Amino acid sequence: MDNVVADLPHGPLDIYRKKASFNWKDMLLFIEGADILAFKQHVSNALEGDPLFARQPGEDIPLAKMRELTFLRVKQLFRYDFLKREEVMANPWKTIALSDSLGMYDWAMLAKYMLNRGMFGATVANTGSKRHSKFVENTENMTTFGCFALTELSHGSNTRAMRTTATYDPATQEFVINSPDFEAAKFWVGNLGKTATHAVLFAQLYTPDKVCHGLHSFIVQVRDTETLLALPGVLVGDMGKKLGQNGLDNGFALFHNVRIPRENLLNKTGDVTPDGRYVTPFKDPNKRFGESLGALSGGRVSITRMALVNLKLALVVAIRFSATRRQFGPKDMEEIPVLEYQLQQWRLIPYLAAAYALEHFSKSIYTNFVEFQLGQMMRDKSGRQGEMGREIHAIGCSSKPLGSWTAQRGIQECREACGGHGYLAMNRLGDLRNDNDPNCTYEGDNNVLLQQTSNYLLSWLDAKRSDGVRIESPFHSVDFLDDFHKILETKFTSNTMEECMDSAVPVAAYKWLVCFLLEESQRRLEQQRASGKDDFEARNNSQAL
Amino acid sequence: MDNVVADLPHGPLDIYRKKASFNWKDMLLFIEGADILAFKQHVSNALEGDPLFARQPGEDIPLAKMRELTFLRVKQLFRYDFLKREEVMANPWKTIALSDSLGMYDWAMLAKYMLNRGMFGATVANTGSKRHSKFVENTENMTTFGCFALTELSHGSNTRAMRTTATYDPATQEFVINSPDFEAAKFWVGNLGKTATHAVLFAQLYTPDKVCHGLHSFIVQVRDTETLLALPGVLVGDMGKKLGQNGLDNGFALFHNVRIPRENLLNKTGDVTPDGRYVTPFKDPNKRFGESLGALSGGRVSITRMALVNLKLALVVAIRFSATRRQFGPKDMEEIPVLEYQLQQWRLIPYLAAAYALEHFSKSIYTNFVEFQLGQMMRDKSGRQGEMGREIHAIGCSSKPLGSWTAQRGIQECREACGGHGYLAMNRLGDLRNDNDPNCTYEGDNNVLLQQTSNYLLSWLDAKRSDGVRIESPFHSVDFLDDFHKILETKFTSNTMEECMDSAVPVAAYKWLVCFLLEESQRRLEQQRASGKDDFEARNNSQAL
Repeated sequence: MDNVVADLPHGPLDIYRKKASFNWKDMLLFIEGADILAFKQHVSNALEGDPLFARQPGEDIPLAKMRELTFLRVKQLFRYDFLKREEVMANPWKTIALSDSLGMYDWAMLAKYMLNRGMFGATVANTGSKRHSKFVENTENMTTFGCFALTELSHGSNTRAMRTTATYDPATQEFVINSPDFEAAKFWVGNLGKTATHAVLFAQLYTPDKVCHGLHSFIVQVRDTETLLALPGVLVGDMGKKLGQNGLDNGFALFHNVRIPRENLLNKTGDVTPDGRYVTPFKDPNKRFGESLGALSGGRVSITRMALVNLKLALVVAIRFSATRRQFGPKDMEEIPVLEYQLQQWRLIPYLAAAYALEHFSKSIYTNFVEFQLGQMMRDKSGRQGEMGREIHAIGCSSKPLGSWTAQRGIQECREACGGHGYLAMNRLGDLRNDNDPNCTYEGDNNVLLQQTSNYLLSWLDAKRSDGVRIESPFHSVDFLDDFHKILETKFTSNTMEECMDSAVPVAAYKWLVCFLLEESQRRLEQQRASGKDDFEARNNSQAL
Repeated sequence: MDNVVADLPHGPLDIYRKKASFNWKDMLLFIEGADILAFKQHVSNALEGDPLFARQPGEDIPLAKMRELTFLRVKQLFRYDFLKREEVMANPWKTIALSDSLGMYDWAMLAKYMLNRGMFGATVANTGSKRHSKFVENTENMTTFGCFALTELSHGSNTRAMRTTATYDPATQEFVINSPDFEAAKFWVGNLGKTATHAVLFAQLYTPDKVCHGLHSFIVQVRDTETLLALPGVLVGDMGKKLGQNGLDNGFALFHNVRIPRENLLNKTGDVTPDGRYVTPFKDPNKRFGESLGALSGGRVSITRMALVNLKLALVVAIRFSATRRQFGPKDMEEIPVLEYQLQQWRLIPYLAAAYALEHFSKSIYTNFVEFQLGQMMRDKSGRQGEMGREIHAIGCSSKPLGSWTAQRGIQECREACGGHGYLAMNRLGDLRNDNDPNCTYEGDNNVLLQQTSNYLLSWLDAKRSDGVRIESPFHSVDFLDDFHKILETKFTSNTMEECMDSAVPVAAYKWLVCFLLEESQRRLEQQRASGKDDFEARNNSQAL
């Protein structure tokens, strides 16, 4: 163990560290495991030893320089190639360990890397076919740089309403890409601002008979690979400064009669023949849409973890500061660390506890997601696989809000609990807050997503009531709902703090609360149905992805 | 009215504006009054027409440039001289109107201006004597630039524990200023980073007999007025980038045998004779300390208002965006503004309501503060004046947390409610959040301050219980506590939403909650006293200012 993890330097924190009731290295090993620990150390050491990754706390770097630096660092990550495909297969958690390590350094750098390799490269690999393999190779060897262009200026949540068009022209066997107006501009696309040469572009596919076949994805080159100048017909640019993650160049693009070869359609879910006929293995367009966007649960599960990493970083800063910052004391001349104050403990320790709980939770739901994904890869068409999909969707839609909001509030509390010193840029709490913020927004607004989970829970209760089914889900997250009425009858009987320290007590209280809120929601929905009001809000939210 | 306030430009917001049940110009006149409205318009027009104040939304300005620009703008504010002393006397609210107007533009600029003119200039004028008038004149004509140096690196809240020393040397009739070590460096001092030439410096005053007479303030020159180079013995510098308000150059300073004339002691509360004897009109050093820092309530009352201004700005951005941003809708092809969704209303409208409530509240407590301050200027030594002081302190210690936290959470909700667009720097929600943050920290950490208000409320209950006094305070904010037991016996009986819309219902619920929490606090304090535990936490918090 001592070979992998160096001792901490001596200093004013020694007093508290010596008071620990456990060996911290044992705890670290227990949480991470030796394999992951060594991997994380390897990544950290590589970045620490590379001058390209050197930085100063609180440094003031212009936007353009920040983007340039991040691009150079991403290039370097491709050279390091920390994680081979085989390693991921052997231990999928290593993907998260790499994300933890790179994200701890800079989320914008990780995003820039993953948008190119994952969102562009992997999407091409997974939703295209053999004819697209050169695009994946070019990504891997960095001769092209990719991005993922779905969101439009006026449409984020409502993905079906995207208005970019791809119209097939059989005369030249090309698709013609057009943005009908500026509100249909592709927007927020990471990497598109400065560096992307190619985009996976989502557009409504039109055949020559003017029939729209819905949203499909295409590979569209937007910039020259040598000069990075925009190609003819492409109006592309940088969206400018954001509240955080400024190493990532989010961009916009408008298309005017941009022609791409027919083969650039990513054709797993549908294809167009040379003469212009649309062919698809799916009969139900809804199912095709679901398959196209099904991978998004992985994003939400990952974001839960990313938020946790931010919370951990902030807590380390705030708790270490509180253990050394002295203010007032029991005697007039002797001051004590602010961590000794109940007030400071009350502000920080619950978030520390939440970090441990989220550490376990984020691992457990990732394991669930991997199980679901393996089923997809094995083309499992069983009912259980479908149920897993529904359940992991419901979990991701609540775990992302739970993680990102806990981190948002926790970082804010850390910032305030460090007083003025927490307001200095060099102490990083501002960057953590700013970089965590998008976790509340992307891959679905937190508030909207939570309604997806509510719908899932309510649908189980409905099924039990109308068909008498037993409530039991593949990952068992909702099994307790089978005791719905029994739980609602339970009473809180604990009288002492000691009793409440038994984790069964808060868990029981939590189950009661969930059941209570669900009963209330059921009641309201029935009222609404009885009054004949069009419930488009609930209906639309259930479409949002 | 139409002469003062221009019509709003036509655009997509017209639909909602036409739906208003009131005339917005009448509302504006009702809230501001014609005089203040004209004054605010005058200030806004001056800044709008001056190229020095031009800026681009979301612009990326280096730290050094930001500081330089802010200094130049502050110089320009001195030239504009928007508010003469006589005008303030005639209508004290104009001070707040000016702060609102300049703060809406940039809080860092306002801070830089006020730290020089108010915290330096007015402190010298109010706590010095005739011999200091040239320092005030030099501030007014901008030949010097001032700052207010109280906080030290290791001491913020605990003001008594400052360790900078000023030792009197009768041989030269000078004070010798020293920082015993780096932890006693003056820290966070606004304007000190780059531009201050003079400081109001707080230090422990030592007479030649080695007796310490406590914290006093001195005028100390730190930089040459021509070259801005540090004077001998002064180690001064910039603290670097902050999370926000980067136009303000917060700085640090260490002093090594820096000599200043005896006359530079601000001598209202104590003086040293040429031969080195300490003389003071106060017998009780605690009272002297209280007088020195008494003015701080004004700061907290102002911060309540500053936070409200931030909340207003954020709400305008978020609500206008929500009224024009369309997403989903009752029919498949027709989308509706997101403001129509219950969810979006539930997120934003309570903060809009809070802004109206805080608008009234911030005015009413400012009026209270002005009444208290007039008594101070008239040297009113009555019991009522003392009571006003206690009450305004308790109000300021709770109004600042109420205002700054409501703004913090409201701005965050606005940021999230605007989705990705709220994350673009050009939409300003990030700057508002970042610039509002110090309101939670300076002039006392919110959590610590709240305990001061608790102490005030508990002391009233104690006095009633032990001496049977009637609870009645000059500003009547706590009179309801006289019905403590009767209020605790009230029950919540409203059954419908309509009943709850009667404002008497939430007010009654609020009174019950305050009494319930105070009863709980009383019970705990008694337990603590009975167990003989040293309650240093409560004691120290009651000393914090």
